[in-house]
Amino acid sequence: MTKPVILVTNDDGVMAPGIRNLIEFMIPLGEVVVVAPNKPQSGMGHAVTISNPLRLEKISKEEYPQEFSCSGTPVDCVKLAVNKILKRKPDLLVSGINHGSNSSINVIYSGTMSAAIEGAMETIPSIGFSLLDFSFDANFKPAKKFIVSIAKNVLKNGLPKGICLNVNIPAVKENELKGIKVCRQARANWEESFDHRKDPSGKDYYWLTGKFALHENSNETDEWALKNNYISVVPVQFDFTAHSVIPEIQNWNFNG
Amino acid sequence: MTKPVILVTNDDGVMAPGIRNLIEFMIPLGEVVVVAPNKPQSGMGHAVTISNPLRLEKISKEEYPQEFSCSGTPVDCVKLAVNKILKRKPDLLVSGINHGSNSSINVIYSGTMSAAIEGAMETIPSIGFSLLDFSFDANFKPAKKFIVSIAKNVLKNGLPKGICLNVNIPAVKENELKGIKVCRQARANWEESFDHRKDPSGKDYYWLTGKFALHENSNETDEWALKNNYISVVPVQFDFTAHSVIPEIQNWNFNG
Repeated sequence: MTKPVILVTNDDGVMAPGIRNLIEFMIPLGEVVVVAPNKPQSGMGHAVTISNPLRLEKISKEEYPQEFSCSGTPVDCVKLAVNKILKRKPDLLVSGINHGSNSSINVIYSGTMSAAIEGAMETIPSIGFSLLDFSFDANFKPAKKFIVSIAKNVLKNGLPKGICLNVNIPAVKENELKGIKVCRQARANWEESFDHRKDPSGKDYYWLTGKFALHENSNETDEWALKNNYISVVPVQFDFTAHSVIPEIQNWNFNG
Repeated sequence: MTKPVILVTNDDGVMAPGIRNLIEFMIPLGEVVVVAPNKPQSGMGHAVTISNPLRLEKISKEEYPQEFSCSGTPVDCVKLAVNKILKRKPDLLVSGINHGSNSSINVIYSGTMSAAIEGAMETIPSIGFSLLDFSFDANFKPAKKFIVSIAKNVLKNGLPKGICLNVNIPAVKENELKGIKVCRQARANWEESFDHRKDPSGKDYYWLTGKFALHENSNETDEWALKNNYISVVPVQFDFTAHSVIPEIQNWNFNG
C-alpha cells in the first residue's frame, strides 16, 4: 500500500519547535512534505501575497522528509505546496503546532487555521493544531498520542467537503489531559487596547494589545473544554453567510 | 438630534478613488471620520499587526472630515479608530468601496470585508462595499443611490449582533442596475496557478495567479445576483463552526 502524503505547514515559521514536533509525530503516518513560512506569520489571518512575488527554498539536506521554506503567508505555503511541489493534493494537511491558542474567535486571526481552511477549500482533509503555550520551549509531548489519533482518524474517515478541524490543546501535564471534546467555537472577542509610546524622534507609535473576553459559559464550547483540561476539536467551515438573517434584511425598504 | 458617527475605512489605501467616493456618499448621512491604510492592503484577510508597532497620521488639513492614515491592516485601522481616535464605537462602519469583487469565497481573503467583520465583532453596525471593477478609474457613481440606501437602512434598523453586510456591485451603467438582492455566499474557490519566473540572478520566484471556479448555479447566491445586474447583499457572521458536523466527529474513536 502507498503511504499517504502528508503536507505539514504552520504560521510560526519552519524553524519553530511546534512544527518540528508535528513533523516528528507525522513521520510514522505517511510520506511527509514540509512547506512552511521562512519567518513568523502569526496573526496573518487568511492573507495571501498578491503584490509581491513568492520565494520557495528547499532547506532539507536529508532526502527525507523534504522541507521547503516560503517567503509568503501560511495560505501561500499551501497553494505553492499543492501546485509547485506536490503537484497533487496531499491526503492530509496538518498545520501547527501553533505556539498559543487558536480557540474561539482566535480562529479568524490565525495563520495556522487559515492554512487548514485553505486546505478545506481545496478539498484536502486538513487539521490545525495549537497548544495553549506561547513560549519557545513549550512542551508539545503530552498531546502527542491525541494529535496522532486525530490525524489517523482524519486519514481513515476523511472529512466532509469544505470542513477542517481546529484542535486546541491545554498546556498541562500528560496525566492531566482528560481526552478530546468535539465542540463549537465559543462566543468571545478581544477587547483591544493600545500601548501608546513615542519613538526616539518624538513621534507616536502604538502596540496592539488586548484582553480576551468570553461571552458565554456553555459546556458545549471549546473554551469550556480547554478550561477543563480537554483537547477541543471544532469542525470549521467557510460559509460566512448568516443564513437566518436573510429574511429580515429582505424586508428592508431600499427605495427610501 | 446629534448626527450619527460614521467610520470610513478600506483596504486599497486612503487615497484610492473607491474610498474617496464612499466618503463623499457618507457625508450627508453623518459625522464622517476616515481611518484607512497608508498603502494598499488587498488580500490581507483578517490580518492584524502584532510584531510591529503601528503608526497613525492625521492627513486632513480641513477641519472636516477628519482623516487619518494608518501603517497597519484594515483590521488595525478599525481597532485604532475605535480606541484612539473616536474613543467610542461609531454608529456605522463602512469599508470600501473596494476596487474589485468580494463576493462568494473572496470574502475570506478580503481586507475590505475583514474591516467590516471586525466592526461586527465589536458590535458596530458594519458594511463592506465592493465594485466589480479593479481599475483605478472605475465608475462608482451608478451605485451611489443604492449605497446610500443600504447605509441609511443600517443606520435606521441596525443589524443583528455579530452580523455585517457584504455588498457587491456589478460594474454596469446606472440604468442597467436592477436593484438589490439579499442572498447568500455562492460556493466557489480559486483554482490557483503560479507564474514561475527567474530573477536577474537566475533564482526562481512565483507570482500567485488563479481562476475563479463557481460550483453552483442557484439563483439564491451573490454570484447569480451580480451576473444578473443586481447588487448583492450577503449578511455575514463569524462563527466558523460547522455545527451539523459535530455529531459525526463525536462518533470517532480517539483511542485507536
